[in-house]
Amino acid sequence: MKLQARLMDIANRGVLLNRADARLLGVLDGDRVQVINESQGIVVPAVVDTTSSLIEKGTIGIYRLTNDRMMLADGDAIEVREALPPASVAHIKKKMNGERLSKDEMAEIIQDVVNENLSPTELTAFVTASYINELDMDEIEHLTRAMVETGDQISFSSHPIVDKHSIGGVPGNKISLLIVPILVASGLKIPKTSSRAITGAGGTADLMEVLAPVEFSASEVQMMTEKVGGTIVWGGATNIAPADDRIILVEYPFKIDARGQMLASVMAKKVAVGADLVVIDIPIGENTKVGSVPEGRKLAREFIELGDRLGINVQCALTYGESPVGHTIGPNLEVQEALAVLEGAREPNSLIQKSISIAGIALEMAGKAAHGAGADLAQELLFSGKALEKMKAIIEVQGGNPNVKAADIRPGEYAFEVHAPASGYIIGLNNHALISLARSAGAPSDNGAGICLHAKKGTRVKKGDPIFTIYADKAWRLEKAIEEGRRLMPVMVEGMLLDRIPDTPWS
Amino acid sequence: MKLQARLMDIANRGVLLNRADARLLGVLDGDRVQVINESQGIVVPAVVDTTSSLIEKGTIGIYRLTNDRMMLADGDAIEVREALPPASVAHIKKKMNGERLSKDEMAEIIQDVVNENLSPTELTAFVTASYINELDMDEIEHLTRAMVETGDQISFSSHPIVDKHSIGGVPGNKISLLIVPILVASGLKIPKTSSRAITGAGGTADLMEVLAPVEFSASEVQMMTEKVGGTIVWGGATNIAPADDRIILVEYPFKIDARGQMLASVMAKKVAVGADLVVIDIPIGENTKVGSVPEGRKLAREFIELGDRLGINVQCALTYGESPVGHTIGPNLEVQEALAVLEGAREPNSLIQKSISIAGIALEMAGKAAHGAGADLAQELLFSGKALEKMKAIIEVQGGNPNVKAADIRPGEYAFEVHAPASGYIIGLNNHALISLARSAGAPSDNGAGICLHAKKGTRVKKGDPIFTIYADKAWRLEKAIEEGRRLMPVMVEGMLLDRIPDTPWS
Repeated sequence: MKLQARLMDIANRGVLLNRADARLLGVLDGDRVQVINESQGIVVPAVVDTTSSLIEKGTIGIYRLTNDRMMLADGDAIEVREALPPASVAHIKKKMNGERLSKDEMAEIIQDVVNENLSPTELTAFVTASYINELDMDEIEHLTRAMVETGDQISFSSHPIVDKHSIGGVPGNKISLLIVPILVASGLKIPKTSSRAITGAGGTADLMEVLAPVEFSASEVQMMTEKVGGTIVWGGATNIAPADDRIILVEYPFKIDARGQMLASVMAKKVAVGADLVVIDIPIGENTKVGSVPEGRKLAREFIELGDRLGINVQCALTYGESPVGHTIGPNLEVQEALAVLEGAREPNSLIQKSISIAGIALEMAGKAAHGAGADLAQELLFSGKALEKMKAIIEVQGGNPNVKAADIRPGEYAFEVHAPASGYIIGLNNHALISLARSAGAPSDNGAGICLHAKKGTRVKKGDPIFTIYADKAWRLEKAIEEGRRLMPVMVEGMLLDRIPDTPWS
Repeated sequence: MKLQARLMDIANRGVLLNRADARLLGVLDGDRVQVINESQGIVVPAVVDTTSSLIEKGTIGIYRLTNDRMMLADGDAIEVREALPPASVAHIKKKMNGERLSKDEMAEIIQDVVNENLSPTELTAFVTASYINELDMDEIEHLTRAMVETGDQISFSSHPIVDKHSIGGVPGNKISLLIVPILVASGLKIPKTSSRAITGAGGTADLMEVLAPVEFSASEVQMMTEKVGGTIVWGGATNIAPADDRIILVEYPFKIDARGQMLASVMAKKVAVGADLVVIDIPIGENTKVGSVPEGRKLAREFIELGDRLGINVQCALTYGESPVGHTIGPNLEVQEALAVLEGAREPNSLIQKSISIAGIALEMAGKAAHGAGADLAQELLFSGKALEKMKAIIEVQGGNPNVKAADIRPGEYAFEVHAPASGYIIGLNNHALISLARSAGAPSDNGAGICLHAKKGTRVKKGDPIFTIYADKAWRLEKAIEEGRRLMPVMVEGMLLDRIPDTPWS
């Protein structure tokens, strides 16, 4: 059917048909059509919405993300046809039925994910089926390779290339801001791609963006790494393993990390940037993604086996994940804390120790330090100021101000200090509650929003001592966070009331 | 956040936010918000699309299906908040993890399905998880009861109430148009709700709509049944077991009938209309939903057990499903064939035998006939013209013309006769291909579209004999169907070429 395009600025995929045209085409709301730009030879699948007034008979509304691929001008004549489901739907059904997917089947599915040929229903069924009928190591390898091959890749002329990844779940985990410059200072190359927070209060990319732009193509990442030794960029802008972003969005409502997909997601990015040596940080503890040490060991073995199949030397560090790393949560607060350490501060100890331990493993793997001597070398590179020089170079190559100081970076102007409601030891910090509170205050989109902890687990506090401060860029956000804090109680003091009706134990 | 409503005629659920407002609210495309009509006390969840131009800052686009629940006027001030996922998401995750769902958990999920609190991703995950981690009979019973309780129900003062259901997959299965009036003629009550075709060429509701309106509320179904003994209406309009419609849409792309959901879907409707006695028609054969007799027996036992738990006496008939029932496929053609039999035609035999067999089982269950004598009674009610009188009463009570004759109903004006390309026996009819061909010709939305078979399996034909005719209401539809027919070859004659390049064996 010939229809006239009407571009609609709706940031979604899809087309809007008049009901009469939909009936003629034989499609219902939610069905799929092919939209064909004949002059350019572009065929794009799209899901149909219908209207009886917003779009006239003979015209078709094209939503923005669909037109990003169609490249139509308003009024262009296009051909629209009922579309058959893609072949990979049959493979997804196979996985639903508990069968194993071959290399080619997995590749077809991931190609259709990247080309947006799968409807949300089909993609969700794939993710759910792969979660329930767990992928075996062959399938995980196929998935990883398919993710790599459907995106951009980097190939360096000199080796080794190192990389690190934290599997997340711990607030305040700003260690990449120290590890990357430490490794660069040792002479290694580390083209680090990071994520933005989805459920967290700040991903490494959100933090780095306080200091410099983070959106670059894969080839820009390569050039910058060749030039200064490393980068800290947002992976989502690189077109590296782009299938992964769409899969993660499906997992998000369930807060599941389908094991196979998590392994593939992490390792695909490492393969795509050409990494030879990778250190994986697996935080362990209640309220993180991995609850126990045996579980962490199993995951570590799987990362190592997958790395082996892909030609990457992987080592894993199981780390303590029950408390935040350092004292701060939220973009500006975390960047300030990390920069202060690069500038010479000797605390917080938890941040420094974790960073030099993981950097040390990479230094040993790369032969820069003898076995057991990596952390000492990392500490020397950090305390000597060499890491700070490299961090400045990275900030500068990404387009930021290399002369920025920790003292220049300020938390939000609205602040609320929470005091101990009773004397006693701090007996618990709840990661989930801290993250939720920081998000209520506006993190990660408001850079100044976040939390600064004045006392950590095991500290003795007196009634009335400050235990943490909430910061926000906007007054109403602060109010919302205070309200949320009353409900969540992210910091527990021994002996404090857990609830008091009608009031709550905030001073 | 206070925003001004702008109603948008998009036949979908959701809201459209300006990107600036979305950022302030802290939501991304695909996230969920609560939209609150404070003056009416209505709170509705909605999924967010964003735009930078179509909707101005301070306003919010409300799509039509969302406003069906919000009842806003253009320009109304509303409150919009970030929404937490509903509690039933945790239950869905439980099912994904292979655990069993309790009665309360299943009820919460189905309540959220009906209230549209679940996103498409969440609903798909539930359906997929229930397909892979099969529901046990307790869970199926919970699901059935939850489906019943979240919709309208009918309660009759006199009993028994009978009902029938065909699980589908066979084209031309117009038997309800005979069975319902036969049972009514025996003095039984049958408030039959039927489906429209989703993947087929015509559901019973599509057929009945040729004769009379089919969209009624549950209480109208009750009143009409009390008055004339039976109805043949579209279940989708009744608000009986409304959760089912949304679940079926998710299963549609995969053509799966998750066993537990199919059992619950069928039986929930029977419970909701107050049925005491139910006959289930299970067609068996290649290219139907149930491939073999042992598989059909297993399904029959499950229907009977579920009926037992719900206080319904169920019997099942395994029927031959490899060929169409009767000679016609498509709304007008099928109605014409069924009316002709009610008016006194003594063929097609496959239609008459199947209808009186199934009606006979119901008559025996209800005590209207002795064991083994039901089919004879059904035949007598049919051949005597008593069923025709009742059909006229049903047509009239639903608002159609009771004096309609088979001869008044005409197939589409565009026709194409297909001739045998060789002499021999008809060795195969492909259900899928016949349905696909009828749909290409315009069925079920074009009433005149469809197929009339002149020879069925086992018939000997001579080269050049007509083997079937394709009908359509529109010339271009007929062309499309002819093209499709060349590819699909729905009728196979012994000895005919399966393919000839570059030509194909149509005469």
